[in-house]
Amino acid sequence: MNRQITLASRPAGYPKESDFNLVEAPIPKPEDGQVLVKTIYLSVDPYMRGRINASKSYAANVEIDEVMVGSVIAQVIESKHPNFEVGDIVNANIGWQEYGVTAGDGLRTIDPTIAPISTGAGILGMPGLTAYFGLLKIGQLQTRETVFVSGAAGAVGSVVGQIAKIKGCRVVGSAGTDEKVDYIVNELGFDAAFNYKEISDYHTELQTLLPDGIDVYFDNVGGEITDAVFPNLRIKGRVVICGQISQYNLEKPESGPRFLWHMITKRARIEGFLVSEYADQHAEALVEMSEWLRQGKLKYRETIEEGGIENAPAAFISMLKGGNIGKQLVKIAELD
Amino acid sequence: MNRQITLASRPAGYPKESDFNLVEAPIPKPEDGQVLVKTIYLSVDPYMRGRINASKSYAANVEIDEVMVGSVIAQVIESKHPNFEVGDIVNANIGWQEYGVTAGDGLRTIDPTIAPISTGAGILGMPGLTAYFGLLKIGQLQTRETVFVSGAAGAVGSVVGQIAKIKGCRVVGSAGTDEKVDYIVNELGFDAAFNYKEISDYHTELQTLLPDGIDVYFDNVGGEITDAVFPNLRIKGRVVICGQISQYNLEKPESGPRFLWHMITKRARIEGFLVSEYADQHAEALVEMSEWLRQGKLKYRETIEEGGIENAPAAFISMLKGGNIGKQLVKIAELD
Repeated sequence: MNRQITLASRPAGYPKESDFNLVEAPIPKPEDGQVLVKTIYLSVDPYMRGRINASKSYAANVEIDEVMVGSVIAQVIESKHPNFEVGDIVNANIGWQEYGVTAGDGLRTIDPTIAPISTGAGILGMPGLTAYFGLLKIGQLQTRETVFVSGAAGAVGSVVGQIAKIKGCRVVGSAGTDEKVDYIVNELGFDAAFNYKEISDYHTELQTLLPDGIDVYFDNVGGEITDAVFPNLRIKGRVVICGQISQYNLEKPESGPRFLWHMITKRARIEGFLVSEYADQHAEALVEMSEWLRQGKLKYRETIEEGGIENAPAAFISMLKGGNIGKQLVKIAELD
Repeated sequence: MNRQITLASRPAGYPKESDFNLVEAPIPKPEDGQVLVKTIYLSVDPYMRGRINASKSYAANVEIDEVMVGSVIAQVIESKHPNFEVGDIVNANIGWQEYGVTAGDGLRTIDPTIAPISTGAGILGMPGLTAYFGLLKIGQLQTRETVFVSGAAGAVGSVVGQIAKIKGCRVVGSAGTDEKVDYIVNELGFDAAFNYKEISDYHTELQTLLPDGIDVYFDNVGGEITDAVFPNLRIKGRVVICGQISQYNLEKPESGPRFLWHMITKRARIEGFLVSEYADQHAEALVEMSEWLRQGKLKYRETIEEGGIENAPAAFISMLKGGNIGKQLVKIAELD
C-alpha cells in the first residue's frame, strides 16, 4: 500500500498534527512517459504553510483531503520514460506519500556521486537554488558589500551567508538559538550572528554588527527583525524577500511601523521572487554549487526525522517553530 | 535689499508660519563663473518637509536660521559666466530668497518660447521629470498595463497619469477633493479616480476600478491608500515610491499592516528613487515632454500664490495640506 498524508483541516495559527490525516491508497501505475517512484526523503519547507491556507498563495492551495504538496527525493522503481531506469534517483513533486507516479519530462535526476542524495532537496536543490538566485540575481550582490540574513541557520539562509562569503562580503545572520548562532559563525564562517530571542533592540544590534549599514538584506523571517533593517540600509540597498516565516502562523495579521519613506531616502529596492522563475538557469547554478561543495566552500547540515511518513506533520511543525538546523527532511525508506 | 525666508524652528507635525522668519540681507555679488539672479517664481515641494527635520534625510538638512532650500525660476541680472546674458531665464537652486548668486556651470536655461517659464519648475522641471523617470525607468511601464497613482492631482501625479495614457495604459488616480477628481478625469483623461476622503474602503474601491489588478503603483502619498494596493498588485507588479506625504507631518510615526509577504506571492518590486539619479538624461526627457505638451498630450495646472516671498511659508503649508492643484508656486517678482 501507499501511505499518504492529507490535509484534514486548515490550521489557525501553528498547524497541529490533527490538521493532517494518514491514509492509505493503492500504489499507482505509471503510464507511457511516466515513472513510478518510491520516496526516500520527504522535504518539509516553510512555503508549504502558505499552501494550506484558504486564501490564495502564489500556487494552487491544498484542498481538504488532498495529499499535501511537496517534493521528495525518490528512487525510480518502474519506468515508462526512455530517460529513466529503475534505480535512478530523482527529485519529484509527488507530495507527502510513499509512492507516486510523475511525468518523466522535466524530472530532475540526482547524481549520487556528488554528495549524499538528501542534498538534492537541500543545498543542491530548491533551498540552495533559492539562496543562489535570490542573493545574486534579485540581490545583485557585489564583492565587498555587506549582507544581513535572517533565518540564517535554515536551509536557505545558511547557503546565502556562505555564498556571500565566497563573494568576499561581510555577512551577519540572525537565528533563534545559541547553537545555531555558534554553527553559522564557527562552522559556516559568517562574520557575526545574534540570537534574536536574546536581543531586544535589533536596530542597535545591527548598527553594532554592521556599522556601515546593509547593502543586501536577505529576508526569510519578516516582522521586527525586518523592521530594524530599513533604518540600517545603505544607499541603493536591496531587500530580497524570500520568506516571512514569522508571519505565517499568526492567528491575526500583525501591524508594524511604516517604513516606505526609507525607500526614497535610501533609493532602495525591495523585491520578492520564486526560484522557479530561474528554472532555465538551475542546471548551470547546480554545477557551480556542486563545485563549491566539493571544494569545501559550502557546508551544510540536515535535520532528519527518521520515523517514516507518519512523522511528516510533526517534522513540518517543528521546522515552522525553528527546530531544525539546515534542511529539515523526513526519512521515508531506504534505497533499494 | 534681498528678502529671504529662514528656518526659525523645526516643526512637530505640520509646519506653522512661525517656524519661518522673513529676514533681509544684502544682494550678493557674483564672482567669476557665477551669475546673479532675481527670483521670479519660487517652487514649494513636498520633499522640503524632510529637509527641515532634525533627522537625516537624503540630502543635507536646513539648519536653524539658514535660508530654506529650494529651486526657483529666475532671471539673470548680472552675469560673470560666458554662457549667460542678462535677461536669461534659468532654474536655480538658490533657496527661498529674492536674489541669489549661483555657479553658471550646470545651471539649466529655460526656453520661454516653449511654454510659460513657470513650467520650468513644474511639468517641464523637477516634478515632470520625476514623473517621467519614476514611471518609465523605475516603474518600467509597458503598453496596456494598469497604473494607479496616489496624489494624482499634484505636480508629479498629474504628469504620471498623463504619461501612462500616452503609453496606452489604463490609469486610476486618487486625490483629496471632488474638484481634483473631476480635473484628473475630465481634463487630464484618467480613466477613473476617487476622492480618498470620501471613501473608507480603499481595497474594494481599487478592486472595482482596477478589477484585473495593478501593474504599476506610483506612490506619492503612502499610508492607508498604499496598504490597499498590495493585495491588488498583479504578478510582477512594481511599486514606485516617489513620496509619502501622508507620513511627513505626523507627530508620531504610524503603524500599518505588514505586507511584505505579498512581495513573494506577487513576485513584486518596491523601489524608491531620486530624479537626480537620471540627471544625464534630463535634457532628452525634456525634449520629449515639450513635444507632448506642444501636441496637447500633456496638460497642466498651476496654483500660484501671488503675494511675494513673505507668503512662501503659507504656500508651502497649504501645499502640504493638499491645497494645490498641479504645481504650487509663489510669484516673487515680474520679469524685467
